Amino acid sequence: MITRNIKEEDYYKVINVLNDWWGGRQMTHLLPRLFFEHFQPTSFIVEDENEVLSAFLIGFVSQTHLNEAYIHFVGVNPKDRKNGLARELYELFFTKVIGLGCNTVRCITSPVNEGSISFHISMGFSVSLSTDYAGLGQDCILFSKSITTY
Amino acid sequence: MITRNIKEEDYYKVINVLNDWWGGRQMTHLLPRLFFEHFQPTSFIVEDENEVLSAFLIGFVSQTHLNEAYIHFVGVNPKDRKNGLARELYELFFTKVIGLGCNTVRCITSPVNEGSISFHISMGFSVSLSTDYAGLGQDCILFSKSITTY
Repeated sequence: MITRNIKEEDYYKVINVLNDWWGGRQMTHLLPRLFFEHFQPTSFIVEDENEVLSAFLIGFVSQTHLNEAYIHFVGVNPKDRKNGLARELYELFFTKVIGLGCNTVRCITSPVNEGSISFHISMGFSVSLSTDYAGLGQDCILFSKSITTY
Repeated sequence: MITRNIKEEDYYKVINVLNDWWGGRQMTHLLPRLFFEHFQPTSFIVEDENEVLSAFLIGFVSQTHLNEAYIHFVGVNPKDRKNGLARELYELFFTKVIGLGCNTVRCITSPVNEGSISFHISMGFSVSLSTDYAGLGQDCILFSKSITTY
């Protein structure tokens, strides 16, 4: 496995598999190419020895709250799940954004996404429900973690 | 008209009208709440005296190319079009990001969006077609403008 910062051309590699990784759910609209172009210092990709995509993380530093970093999207190839790749990518992200002056990491998920909720709790994130967060009737789970002592 | 930096709660105000402003096209998926939360210093809203939304611009500074700023989304209320609001928001954005060290502004649109192409040419952007930019068969028009002499 090789882990490196994401490149713009990785966009194709990711969108070509994204819906399959989510069991056929349409996900590509959540990940426009701008995220691969403009947030490379804090976004990472893991490939196997044949350059097959194993996992990726797209994140950035908030430009409103300079002490906060935000993880927008994380995906792991179904064949590589349960191997700790998501945890490794999160830890890499924490280390990077601490170096950029951040002390808090935030992300969100849907209330139905039990796997994501369990994962974030295991990573030490606090969890709260925000009603109508993404619009009327569209509740979200908000995750927050202090990384000052990470 | 009052122009101000965008706030997180403006998210609701924008998504409630966005599809209508685009003639019923489904657009809200392109504008998740994170853009209202994390890019406030470079994103702006114009309201009329009754706090009715007239226009907005969502942009940010690239974290990959620190000299580049990116305009992700601009909308103008149909009743307020042809009044120069988009131009005003672009000029406000240029001034802001020059102050943040940028010398280039980029944005994209679909080849079918003739109004957007005309507007960006009138604003002095250079224009190029990028084949398969957003995926196979999904060409995009890329706009770029030097703002060093703006």
